[in-house]
Amino acid sequence: MNSTEVTLGIDIGGTNTLFGLVDQEGNCHLRGKIPTEADKPADEMFKRLFVKFRDTTSEFSQSFTIKGVGVGAPNANHYTGKIENPPNLSWKSIDLVELINNHINLPVAVTNDANAAALGELMFGNAKDMQNFIEITLGTGLGSGIVVNGELVYGHDGFAGEMGHVIIERNGRLCGCGRHGCLEAYVSATGITRTVKELLSSSDKPSLLRNIPIDRLDSKKIYDAALANDELAREAFETTGRLLGETLANAVAYFSPEAIFLFGGLAAAGDYIFKPVKEHMEANLLHIFKNKVKILPSGLPMGEAAILGAGALIWHQLSA
Amino acid sequence: MNSTEVTLGIDIGGTNTLFGLVDQEGNCHLRGKIPTEADKPADEMFKRLFVKFRDTTSEFSQSFTIKGVGVGAPNANHYTGKIENPPNLSWKSIDLVELINNHINLPVAVTNDANAAALGELMFGNAKDMQNFIEITLGTGLGSGIVVNGELVYGHDGFAGEMGHVIIERNGRLCGCGRHGCLEAYVSATGITRTVKELLSSSDKPSLLRNIPIDRLDSKKIYDAALANDELAREAFETTGRLLGETLANAVAYFSPEAIFLFGGLAAAGDYIFKPVKEHMEANLLHIFKNKVKILPSGLPMGEAAILGAGALIWHQLSA
Repeated sequence: MNSTEVTLGIDIGGTNTLFGLVDQEGNCHLRGKIPTEADKPADEMFKRLFVKFRDTTSEFSQSFTIKGVGVGAPNANHYTGKIENPPNLSWKSIDLVELINNHINLPVAVTNDANAAALGELMFGNAKDMQNFIEITLGTGLGSGIVVNGELVYGHDGFAGEMGHVIIERNGRLCGCGRHGCLEAYVSATGITRTVKELLSSSDKPSLLRNIPIDRLDSKKIYDAALANDELAREAFETTGRLLGETLANAVAYFSPEAIFLFGGLAAAGDYIFKPVKEHMEANLLHIFKNKVKILPSGLPMGEAAILGAGALIWHQLSA
Repeated sequence: MNSTEVTLGIDIGGTNTLFGLVDQEGNCHLRGKIPTEADKPADEMFKRLFVKFRDTTSEFSQSFTIKGVGVGAPNANHYTGKIENPPNLSWKSIDLVELINNHINLPVAVTNDANAAALGELMFGNAKDMQNFIEITLGTGLGSGIVVNGELVYGHDGFAGEMGHVIIERNGRLCGCGRHGCLEAYVSATGITRTVKELLSSSDKPSLLRNIPIDRLDSKKIYDAALANDELAREAFETTGRLLGETLANAVAYFSPEAIFLFGGLAAAGDYIFKPVKEHMEANLLHIFKNKVKILPSGLPMGEAAILGAGALIWHQLSA
């Protein structure tokens, strides 16, 4: 029987940690999931992870040859192989490569989740033939993975690509990072929710969203209201898209990418977000960049994207 | 007699076009200069240029082996080999490679002046061991050349690295590009002059600069006034440095460079510009980038930098 070459992709999240085997065509095999339980030590999580992994894969061990382990995790540093002070995990600094090599003796490569998504887009998604593009992940926060000349931009210390923390408004909204006016304080699931709260409290405009207790508002409910023609919800999407579009016009001046991909929860709102993003990016572009840069949805399937991206990390290294 | 390997570096400017032979150590030999006369056809300029070049070099033709021709010029595109709608030249679109190969049959590589300066910094200046850095050229405008993973960021179309046209203030100052609020409308020789004019007209603050007819103000006179302890001139430098520092903090979030080099006229103002740039960049950096990114003067000699950068373009290609 022929054995399929795969990489093991691991996505470490604040709540769950996912894994799966990723082949060269971007198919995801034998997926599994455990709770991260980030309040307990990291080595316990990896013990549970590899117990679950062996349970899931043992009867198929002849079918797959694993080439290496790719990991996507918040604040994971490609150069050091460590997670350093992850925002939603209590682990401080942990050495991912060492922890994983305790369980499996294969090459390990790590990066943050947005960079992993960018590599997934490059290998298996809508960026297959592109050398220069930007991947924006719109979740609770805003992440970005930037590809230049076919390679991820890691920068000097491995932490490049933090577009969520570009300051777009001096003395603007307080961001989780402690500074004011960061893009992700406006453009993210939490950002659009804050925009709605501001709109609700600063005007008497009628809105379906007034029927929801303010602390239960979230981006999903705002999207549902927009679908139901709620003007205030649509205004919130317009504002969110405008701020992202204006910021992307500046990002184009730096990178001149072929395309910018929007991925994640907010991107699922389709035209409500894509339309204002495109319109305000174009309106703010330097003339030489006008009508050149595509704003596209990610081609990665939402549920598997993080695993595919993590798996792509090893495939990308092997192809270099 | 041993012949020294060199590249021919050509810098095309609005007023003058310079050339010189650049060896691998970054020495510049047999420099020459002709007026660009950009109101006449480009092929006439190149005819005059190569007449002058042969006059200058003919008696040394045994001493040098020329490996190729590198050209730095406004709006020159590395991918196409063309100058496209240069701001200070009347040439519309010209094919530099073809025009030069009419006179000399060697490989030709072209790029814009800021990218050439960045390559010069990489090969011969203060960025010698760096893989990730940003070169900012402060002249009449503001140019930038960005190096990621040891390579220039050209982007999809060859026009990346336009930091001068990052919008830093919505509905801000009108820029030469026709948009409002671009960095170079504030941070450049013309930018600081506009800042002084605003300060002079919006306050009664005494200043040496009030003795100068407003249309004769320039960055040199502002620097002289600052040296003479003129408070308004110093305020103009502080504002200019603050705006550049704030913008660089955002650029660091994208690129996480090892260093940022300031080159050109305004950079010669030393601490008047470097101090506020450093202070306001640090104050605005995301915590993971604090105290990591150096702001440094260029290591290229002012008079030869453009030729060295153009010459470096070929050396860099040969070393790839």
